[in-house]
Amino acid sequence: MKCIIIAIGTEVVSGDIVNTNAAYISDYLKQFGIKTIQHLAILDDERHILKAIKRSLKRAELIITTGGLGPTYDDITKIAIAKALKQSLKKDEKSLETIRGFFRRLGREMTPNNERQAYFPENSIIVENNNGTAPACIAKCPKKGAVIMLPGPPSEMIPLMEHEKIVEYLNRGKTDEIQEIRLKFFGIGESSLEERLKEHMTCTKDLILAPYAKVGEVELKITAKAKTIEEAKEKADNLKEKIYSIAGEFIYTEGKKSLEEVLIDKLKEKNLKLVTAESCTGGLIAEKITNIPGSSEVFTGGLVTYSNEMKMSLLDVKKETLDEFGAVSRGVAIEMADGARLKYNADIAISVTGIAGPDGGSEEKPVGLVYVGISTAEKTEAMRFNFTGNRNKIREVTAKNAIHMALSEIK
Amino acid sequence: MKCIIIAIGTEVVSGDIVNTNAAYISDYLKQFGIKTIQHLAILDDERHILKAIKRSLKRAELIITTGGLGPTYDDITKIAIAKALKQSLKKDEKSLETIRGFFRRLGREMTPNNERQAYFPENSIIVENNNGTAPACIAKCPKKGAVIMLPGPPSEMIPLMEHEKIVEYLNRGKTDEIQEIRLKFFGIGESSLEERLKEHMTCTKDLILAPYAKVGEVELKITAKAKTIEEAKEKADNLKEKIYSIAGEFIYTEGKKSLEEVLIDKLKEKNLKLVTAESCTGGLIAEKITNIPGSSEVFTGGLVTYSNEMKMSLLDVKKETLDEFGAVSRGVAIEMADGARLKYNADIAISVTGIAGPDGGSEEKPVGLVYVGISTAEKTEAMRFNFTGNRNKIREVTAKNAIHMALSEIK
Repeated sequence: MKCIIIAIGTEVVSGDIVNTNAAYISDYLKQFGIKTIQHLAILDDERHILKAIKRSLKRAELIITTGGLGPTYDDITKIAIAKALKQSLKKDEKSLETIRGFFRRLGREMTPNNERQAYFPENSIIVENNNGTAPACIAKCPKKGAVIMLPGPPSEMIPLMEHEKIVEYLNRGKTDEIQEIRLKFFGIGESSLEERLKEHMTCTKDLILAPYAKVGEVELKITAKAKTIEEAKEKADNLKEKIYSIAGEFIYTEGKKSLEEVLIDKLKEKNLKLVTAESCTGGLIAEKITNIPGSSEVFTGGLVTYSNEMKMSLLDVKKETLDEFGAVSRGVAIEMADGARLKYNADIAISVTGIAGPDGGSEEKPVGLVYVGISTAEKTEAMRFNFTGNRNKIREVTAKNAIHMALSEIK
Repeated sequence: MKCIIIAIGTEVVSGDIVNTNAAYISDYLKQFGIKTIQHLAILDDERHILKAIKRSLKRAELIITTGGLGPTYDDITKIAIAKALKQSLKKDEKSLETIRGFFRRLGREMTPNNERQAYFPENSIIVENNNGTAPACIAKCPKKGAVIMLPGPPSEMIPLMEHEKIVEYLNRGKTDEIQEIRLKFFGIGESSLEERLKEHMTCTKDLILAPYAKVGEVELKITAKAKTIEEAKEKADNLKEKIYSIAGEFIYTEGKKSLEEVLIDKLKEKNLKLVTAESCTGGLIAEKITNIPGSSEVFTGGLVTYSNEMKMSLLDVKKETLDEFGAVSRGVAIEMADGARLKYNADIAISVTGIAGPDGGSEEKPVGLVYVGISTAEKTEAMRFNFTGNRNKIREVTAKNAIHMALSEIK
């Protein structure tokens, strides 16, 4: 089954709010074997809505609309959709009672606009909304397919998508079982990875291998479809094994976990304590790590040593090293990592010193030059990087590389 | 001028990433008097792209596409768009050289796919991309209008939108002069602010006052339109003065600067040095501050003291205070701030201790309980907060309140 998702609302089209609903719904529909083929965001205008619905019904059997059901609109969404389905609107007494109850509980007066929220295209399954006044509905098309109308706020839309009436409807069209596998890569660019895997890059009805590049990393997603879940799994696993055999050394995890989550898991597993000593990343590594619940078990603390004085007093970096090589140098990265690990009783320390720009670069030490140090009881090493991009990007890529280096060290 | 924004990419349509680009672009275009009338997200498919572009060109003079320019696709976006514009693709030597340079600096091999990124519809203005390999371009339509093609990652797309070649093009269609004023508020909720200003909330053709709520803050944007810039300015200034007289005490800046940028400006102006001591925010405050270029002038450094041991050794927090009141307490926040300021020779110190959750809360000290301390030579104070939301939200709101407290202290 194919689906088109339509956000109705000037606030979306004008950029006042980001449409997170469409991504949520597309992802949610996958479990039912429903493929989203388009997202649309249109203005609150009856003519626009009517046109968009009519056109979409030619291309997809399922249309899901979000928004345009609030009491502030003159109900144009439902009027337009009813027109598109060649139906009239009918009052639903049960919904009206629920809306009345909602206002009673809030101690607020109900407006005539709210009453209009109880009208639906005649051939509809009405889905009660426990988190707002606008009920959702599944308006069935005269021949086949349906338009599911949902309210816009995610706090109302998400519970409604999971409502049993909607789940039941979505399950009806399910014919295939789906197996999805995500592989996350670090240290290889999107194009090199695809070049290596080019024989296996596939996009058929039953098997899709799709790459997604993020700052510093690449994700490959395998989607396999079959009549039974066992068959789908087998197909996905076969492709996965091939990918491992070709580029397995760059895979840091399977699934949705981030680099820092994988690092924290590993630290927990090996019962190791981590400390960070950051200069140009300014706390970004500590921030990423502490953003993960439970990180306090393995993260002792972090130091953001911007000044040379702090590098010396807090990390025992030697004055001679700073004088001879400068703050952005391999020697300082190594002393920062060792100092952090030894002074703060950690098993592993990450250090970063570099030039994030836009100022502070020189011919010899340009913006983007970064040293990342890793210290453990066994050894200390530092790597030199030359990153490009703006301050933000350099800091982000540095933090990811530093976390990846720590992960590689303890793996 | 009307605009349609098209995101090209299976990763968007399938819900793997949220399309934040469309909202950014719509909002950005307003300053040029360009109205967005639709957002679209379509699959990486030549036929789909061709159809969407053709259809959109009938309804809008400006089409902006994001995505589909990466080296992994067979360049179908540019092929399809060139077809829609009835043009052929032409190699741009300068772009090719830039892409080659990008790979040289990275020390990576350039693939044939990357070479294709240097081809553009013949009648194009090419816009160099300093943050990635895919250049952007403004492909002019045979008659009127244009398709602006941008890469998908926001870190590349946003700087390109602000590129002078694109700004110049967007300015061309401008007929009215527009004056925009942004007022940024802290310490007041969106609905309270709107309630206070309800008489002045306006949305006419010539004068718009629109609120945007972000985590912990609210922004009001005044947009005034007139034939001359003087008239537009006068209209906007009149409304601004009214807002100042009603809710001026909550305004922390005019313009686009963030809380941390305003804080850094103030610190520079007063020649003060800042140090941070964080527990539950885990480096987020330091990260926000060091994300601003030039922050090293006023930011000495930061400490992320997760463990009690680090609080004692690095910040001179007393064991008795920790034992008697616990790590999350007013006393510890005050000792952290004082310790940080005195030990690291700063003029002002920010400290944070709290429970970000999801675990670690108790009846007495629930998740969301946070103390923020500020220490200066004159005085030390700590404020208690009870925030709600998930870990991310609690950390973010804490960091913003802490930065705002420091700002209020030195203002």
